[in-house]
Amino acid sequence: LALLLLSAELASLLLTAVLSCPATKPSMLNVHLVPHTHDDVGWLKTVDQYFYGGRNYIQHAGVQYILDSVVAELQKDPARRFIYVETAFFFRWWSQQSRSTRNIVTQLVQEGCLEFVNGGWCMSDEASTHYSSVIDQMTLGLRFLNDTFGECGRPRVAWHIDPFGHAREHASIFAQMGYDGFFFGRLDYQDKDRRMKTKEMEMVWRASASLNPPTADLFTGVLPNGYNPPPGFCWDQSCSDDPVQDDPALEDYNVDDLVSRFISISKAQAALYKTNHIVMTMGSDFQYENANPWYKNMDKLIHYVNAQQANGSQVNVLYSTPSCYLQELNLANQTWPLKSDDFFPYADGPHDFWTGYFTSRPALKRYERLSNSLLQTCNQLEVLGGPKSRSGPFGKGDSDTMKRAMAVAQHHDAVSGTEKQHVADDYAKRLAEGWAHCQVLVSNSLSVLSGSEVPRVFCENLNISVCPLTEGSKMFSMNVYNPLARPVSWSVHLPVNGTSYNVTDSSGNVVDTHLILIYTAARPLCADLKRPRVPSAPTLSGRASALRRPSPAAPPLCADLHAASPLCFQYLKVTFDPNTGLLSGLTNLETQQSVQLTQNFYWYNASVGNAESSQTSGAYIFRPNSSTPCAVSKKPDISTLQNSVVQEVRQQFSPWVSQVVRLYEGSRELELEWTVGPVPVEDGFGKEVITRFDSNISSAGYFYSDSNGREVLERRKDYRPTWDLTQTEPIAGNYYPINSRAFIKDGKAQLTVVTERSQGVSSIYNGSLEIMLHRRLLRDDYRGVGEPLSEPGEFGNGLVVRGRLLLTLTPPETAADSHRPLAQGLVLQPLLSFQEGAPKPTSKLEFSALQAALPPAVHLLTLSQWDSESVLLRLEHQYESGESKAFSQPVTLNLQVHTHTHSAVTALLPCCLLYRLSLLCFDCSFFS
Amino acid sequence: LALLLLSAELASLLLTAVLSCPATKPSMLNVHLVPHTHDDVGWLKTVDQYFYGGRNYIQHAGVQYILDSVVAELQKDPARRFIYVETAFFFRWWSQQSRSTRNIVTQLVQEGCLEFVNGGWCMSDEASTHYSSVIDQMTLGLRFLNDTFGECGRPRVAWHIDPFGHAREHASIFAQMGYDGFFFGRLDYQDKDRRMKTKEMEMVWRASASLNPPTADLFTGVLPNGYNPPPGFCWDQSCSDDPVQDDPALEDYNVDDLVSRFISISKAQAALYKTNHIVMTMGSDFQYENANPWYKNMDKLIHYVNAQQANGSQVNVLYSTPSCYLQELNLANQTWPLKSDDFFPYADGPHDFWTGYFTSRPALKRYERLSNSLLQTCNQLEVLGGPKSRSGPFGKGDSDTMKRAMAVAQHHDAVSGTEKQHVADDYAKRLAEGWAHCQVLVSNSLSVLSGSEVPRVFCENLNISVCPLTEGSKMFSMNVYNPLARPVSWSVHLPVNGTSYNVTDSSGNVVDTHLILIYTAARPLCADLKRPRVPSAPTLSGRASALRRPSPAAPPLCADLHAASPLCFQYLKVTFDPNTGLLSGLTNLETQQSVQLTQNFYWYNASVGNAESSQTSGAYIFRPNSSTPCAVSKKPDISTLQNSVVQEVRQQFSPWVSQVVRLYEGSRELELEWTVGPVPVEDGFGKEVITRFDSNISSAGYFYSDSNGREVLERRKDYRPTWDLTQTEPIAGNYYPINSRAFIKDGKAQLTVVTERSQGVSSIYNGSLEIMLHRRLLRDDYRGVGEPLSEPGEFGNGLVVRGRLLLTLTPPETAADSHRPLAQGLVLQPLLSFQEGAPKPTSKLEFSALQAALPPAVHLLTLSQWDSESVLLRLEHQYESGESKAFSQPVTLNLQVHTHTHSAVTALLPCCLLYRLSLLCFDCSFFS
Repeated sequence: LALLLLSAELASLLLTAVLSCPATKPSMLNVHLVPHTHDDVGWLKTVDQYFYGGRNYIQHAGVQYILDSVVAELQKDPARRFIYVETAFFFRWWSQQSRSTRNIVTQLVQEGCLEFVNGGWCMSDEASTHYSSVIDQMTLGLRFLNDTFGECGRPRVAWHIDPFGHAREHASIFAQMGYDGFFFGRLDYQDKDRRMKTKEMEMVWRASASLNPPTADLFTGVLPNGYNPPPGFCWDQSCSDDPVQDDPALEDYNVDDLVSRFISISKAQAALYKTNHIVMTMGSDFQYENANPWYKNMDKLIHYVNAQQANGSQVNVLYSTPSCYLQELNLANQTWPLKSDDFFPYADGPHDFWTGYFTSRPALKRYERLSNSLLQTCNQLEVLGGPKSRSGPFGKGDSDTMKRAMAVAQHHDAVSGTEKQHVADDYAKRLAEGWAHCQVLVSNSLSVLSGSEVPRVFCENLNISVCPLTEGSKMFSMNVYNPLARPVSWSVHLPVNGTSYNVTDSSGNVVDTHLILIYTAARPLCADLKRPRVPSAPTLSGRASALRRPSPAAPPLCADLHAASPLCFQYLKVTFDPNTGLLSGLTNLETQQSVQLTQNFYWYNASVGNAESSQTSGAYIFRPNSSTPCAVSKKPDISTLQNSVVQEVRQQFSPWVSQVVRLYEGSRELELEWTVGPVPVEDGFGKEVITRFDSNISSAGYFYSDSNGREVLERRKDYRPTWDLTQTEPIAGNYYPINSRAFIKDGKAQLTVVTERSQGVSSIYNGSLEIMLHRRLLRDDYRGVGEPLSEPGEFGNGLVVRGRLLLTLTPPETAADSHRPLAQGLVLQPLLSFQEGAPKPTSKLEFSALQAALPPAVHLLTLSQWDSESVLLRLEHQYESGESKAFSQPVTLNLQVHTHTHSAVTALLPCCLLYRLSLLCFDCSFFS
Repeated sequence: LALLLLSAELASLLLTAVLSCPATKPSMLNVHLVPHTHDDVGWLKTVDQYFYGGRNYIQHAGVQYILDSVVAELQKDPARRFIYVETAFFFRWWSQQSRSTRNIVTQLVQEGCLEFVNGGWCMSDEASTHYSSVIDQMTLGLRFLNDTFGECGRPRVAWHIDPFGHAREHASIFAQMGYDGFFFGRLDYQDKDRRMKTKEMEMVWRASASLNPPTADLFTGVLPNGYNPPPGFCWDQSCSDDPVQDDPALEDYNVDDLVSRFISISKAQAALYKTNHIVMTMGSDFQYENANPWYKNMDKLIHYVNAQQANGSQVNVLYSTPSCYLQELNLANQTWPLKSDDFFPYADGPHDFWTGYFTSRPALKRYERLSNSLLQTCNQLEVLGGPKSRSGPFGKGDSDTMKRAMAVAQHHDAVSGTEKQHVADDYAKRLAEGWAHCQVLVSNSLSVLSGSEVPRVFCENLNISVCPLTEGSKMFSMNVYNPLARPVSWSVHLPVNGTSYNVTDSSGNVVDTHLILIYTAARPLCADLKRPRVPSAPTLSGRASALRRPSPAAPPLCADLHAASPLCFQYLKVTFDPNTGLLSGLTNLETQQSVQLTQNFYWYNASVGNAESSQTSGAYIFRPNSSTPCAVSKKPDISTLQNSVVQEVRQQFSPWVSQVVRLYEGSRELELEWTVGPVPVEDGFGKEVITRFDSNISSAGYFYSDSNGREVLERRKDYRPTWDLTQTEPIAGNYYPINSRAFIKDGKAQLTVVTERSQGVSSIYNGSLEIMLHRRLLRDDYRGVGEPLSEPGEFGNGLVVRGRLLLTLTPPETAADSHRPLAQGLVLQPLLSFQEGAPKPTSKLEFSALQAALPPAVHLLTLSQWDSESVLLRLEHQYESGESKAFSQPVTLNLQVHTHTHSAVTALLPCCLLYRLSLLCFDCSFFS
């Protein structure tokens, strides 16, 4: 049903395109000039500074003027074209326009003069984004265009001209969204060289190994000059190329020279492509602030170049757009080469691998991921709590602030970590504002759902054991909201001030808890670990627990064993080397399989440039000055903790690296909670800190990493699937992004690492897997950011980052059964909220939006208020084809069984179809 | 009659102004925002590069886009205003516009939205320009505006915001042209400080000591911020001030801050001025290429600042123009302080005197002056030869090319010598093209007047004794055209190859000539000096002489006496120190007065900055590193020459400085022909070369220099007439511009130096006068030109410059009787042309346009074709009030007596009125 719908739309689309595309000359070489601007949604300046043109001393850029100017220039000649990309900016601009300007713009859109391409809120990063947030940000942008311009505003091509490498999952999403094609600018220089020689600059990207072709097939084109004009033909105010000087009465008349140079450039470019149509991107970063010089000179160029046709020239230049260019390619009836891997890593030179940003700004990367979790909860509770969620006892709340903050954060200089420090601070601030607005909404919603209007607090600093309410209260209650569509277990650590607590669940049952003494530099307190693990908690659920502190009693139990004894519960056994205190082995007690496994922390010293290349390590580029990393310590200090719910080995490697190796009762995964920073740089070297697992798994150079948190791609050391690689950076050239998981395996065992943020990963040695955790650098890497990546942290002496890796050891064939739910559990984690005192007797302590958990294969991706009449529901099959015997099968789901009869939720159900990873509910909800 | 006419025009003007000026609020402080651009007619780029926006890598500037953009923005709101200044650019732009754009612009001009100010072809330099060329360039610009827009296009204010010091003669010209007022930006920082304290930023400039007030009175205003906006309010694309960020939903909302800063700046500025109206220049160099950011933000500023009036604010902001501002000042009925000296020299800091450019690029300064002479001849011969001058036997010729080249050359970074080298080359090239076009016209005209179509050549390199025709011909004839309205004597030096020549004048009489052996490095030839001196030659006249070389005879007479014997003819005796060979005394044999007079050449080493200031000497700035100059030589090598027409002492001071001291038979002036260069810089020091006269005249710190070649101003060492000077640069702070003459005097004697180009002059010691001749520098002076002033010259090793000073010794009361005609004779010098062979018997060998010479006081300033129906005639009284007993009197002239009945010439005569220095013919011819 849904596929049928898509095809029908496509057909009508092409019809529209034919109507608004410029005429070409079939017998000639047609040069499609595509006037465009590339407007970063934050980079050297914040998104708002870019919009207004504030702080132009940092970078001259003001998007308000770009749109003003382009709209004025398009009105002067119906032949002129412009494409616009970033809806975050267009939305801001539109909101400031008068009705008459809006009418003019609408007409320009209807006539095809102004065309939106890509159309998301931003042009997302492809290496460090999670697919759920990418889909959300695309939705936000596309919906605005659809609401504002209808079908005419619908982008037909995806346009990722700047991102530094391209994820297959992005292409898959674009294909499933119904884009006709995809264009980008950056790819590995060796890959580009080969493609130019073999005329493979344009291809069909088969972007999923799970979906049946052509569901995820996408025409993909590499643009000839990145996204810039050909040399000598940049007429933006930011450029210095000579204009067309066509008055013979003035000095420097240059028409003849320009025309012959343009014709020769066109012919040279045509030799690299398959048809008699070529495309030229006429624009670049923040160009067209003054569109007149661009259009005035392009008008003249077109006039004078085409005038040569009278003298036999076979070159025809025209204003065009990517979709019109694509339409001509379609008409050419060519066969295109097929591409099925991805475009990582990206290098623009032998020693210039853009693999550092996979890890850059790890705290921002985590905050962005955590914010997504809160946003999904916020969305769900907005639906479940009804209109009172947005305006209730705690004031006005909304999810829009967070939606926009998250959408902005997906930008390829946002979560990527490649922005200036003040801009990174701005992204974080926007997210924090999103949190504040969502927390009001959540409080309102929970008051509706629970019947309690007692204020709630959201202890955001539990990761550093800070929560004033729990620390100061004699009795408080905690609500746990689980945004997944199935039950999860979740351990909760709360800082408290007392020495003994009674903990009961919503039914009044006592919960197993333990008080643990912890030391932190800033807060030498004895705090407690609690673990109200609720294995069968209903899904999409809130649950309240009450914690009461009795009268003071004995001091807490503070374990402090200084030997690394094994950790062991029913599913997993973890051994440590008694001499070094390092991890030494892992045994899956269910499958009875063991591996030798050591783990340690290392750093690469950052290159400051050498004789081979001046390239430094920086926000974008990873370039170690040696392939051998330095160990932080070969023998960490050890302390251990054991009780009935958790066993820990705490390793202190140095004053700036520590780790807690933690095994929970009932867990099949090992948790490694690492703390890194401030990274010392007093020795004059920037450092890139990794943790490395070395096992006896025979991985033979292969390893695996996910694409945007969804499908998994095979990686191989010193190898690229589509060309004969000359490896010039043995470490950096083997790094790939992970968003949620990576693994190595052999015939028997698979060691999987699940992460809670995006990072860089590689496998340099047989049986090893290394993950870059943190970076602190002293040099800029000459890609424009103009700052060394050295985050100041709270005290200005360098950022401390804490994170977790979850480790599983399984047979390869059942690995996905573990890592899929584990990863989803990290992406959508429970939201805790706290209330002073005991719950009122009238409060409802537990509720669930679902009557029963969804089947394991089905993931509730989105439940969000669409408008006052309907909600958006996205369900997806979360297993790849073939990765799980148990779950990689088609699933039939009767939504009536799982949902309460909630009219809003069911409103969109007829559009939904579940099959493997497809998210057809999204397509139909947006484009219907 | 003429004064009456002017008053009538003024009244109608004010009426127009009332109609188009914006409303103000009488009870408030009215802030007149004046949107403007300052477009240099060449500086770092050539005028055409600036027009098109070529070579933007040198400087981002493209005037075509400025006018495009401003015209578009003015149409959006009738309240918006813009002023435009440089007609050289407007003319280029207008010629490329469509009829519909022209209609729009005409309407904008009629509505007062687009207002022309100043309106000359360029904004002329005030230190190194000659008044005749300033008047010509103003005429060219104003005429275009008048022809194109009529009365609405007429500029009402003069606007010299950038020139580096202000000449009184400029103000006088502006006053006589009917401007209502004059605004500028630069004046001495001490002067400005004082004027701000005393509220004397605005004044009446009484710009002539000869004309009866208020003929040369001009309201003059000093702008508050040079010509820039107040700090923080520059919204051009070239600026980085924050825009008005008025969306509270976005970060960086700044309306409150901007409004309060603007109000406080306005109040502070109002404290420096007398009325409740103040002006702010909203623009700067080449701004408004993208006018939208400017207007969009000014719109908002006006809106938000005026919105504060509802809260009691007394500040009212409005779009305005200088003439509307001036109208409000007129209505305020204030009395203004009176100013009667000038604004030289200009310093923007204690060690930053802009007195170097008085001399910078001496060869360009001379070429410009010589080009004016050719242009006047070209203009006259265009009239006298009739239409065949423009299209005749030698093809198409015109005077327009030279008119435009000369008009461009008047720009304050052209003849001033403060442009980049490639731009100086462009100015010279334009002049050379003007020469070529004029030479065709002159050839055509002379063929009409003489009846001979034998081709003519114009030996342009006679100053270095190069003329292929005279060097290679056995018989040739020479025509001398005298553009003055009275006879002159003029010596002619021609290079020849023979050893004996017969020279006859137009009547066949033998002329006294001498052959002289000369040595030059490049051409070791024996060449000849000829002197067909024709004391009673008719004026505006051509005269042909025939030179025939007889059979070879005895070798030429080559005098080579190695002792400095006195030079002496009937009027003058010149003595030399027998030990040193330097000049030692001068005696006027008519008046029997003598002075001790030594003369030598020196250089100042250029400062490279020192502890007091980092200021260097450069194209603009003169800053010697010591107040004591170095003598080039104290004992030059000497050779002498004496014959019946000339006596010479040739002094070789060094390989790079030489001089010929030359006295002609019948002359009252001594000629000093200096040759300087290449200035050696191998010692690492830039050098500024002067010649200094030291006499026993008791000048007591006083000296005199002309203003733009017309009236003379008194100068006094370490003194300014209008404020208490703190002298911080004892040499550079005492330099003033001369355009044609300077002198020192005491009760008995006046020593006058007449120059043939603009230079810098000072008198540092009692009885001394020093003139800077040449400069070669190794550092830039940080005023933007970005190049050291080191002209490469023909061989790349430094420029050689040759020039002349004419020296007279007279009683003070009769000095002007000599220097006025001497100076005019240098400004308008005869044009020589040569023809191979003897004149045909049918040729007319002599003609004159005048029946008799004009009276000595009357100078024919202009005779030029105005259109096909009429010619422009400008006559002026060339003596100042009181400077000459014989000639400083009113003159009555019956033009019918002096002119042939030539209808074109007489067409404008009814408008002409002669009185002292007034040029009322100009006024009436242009504005009638």
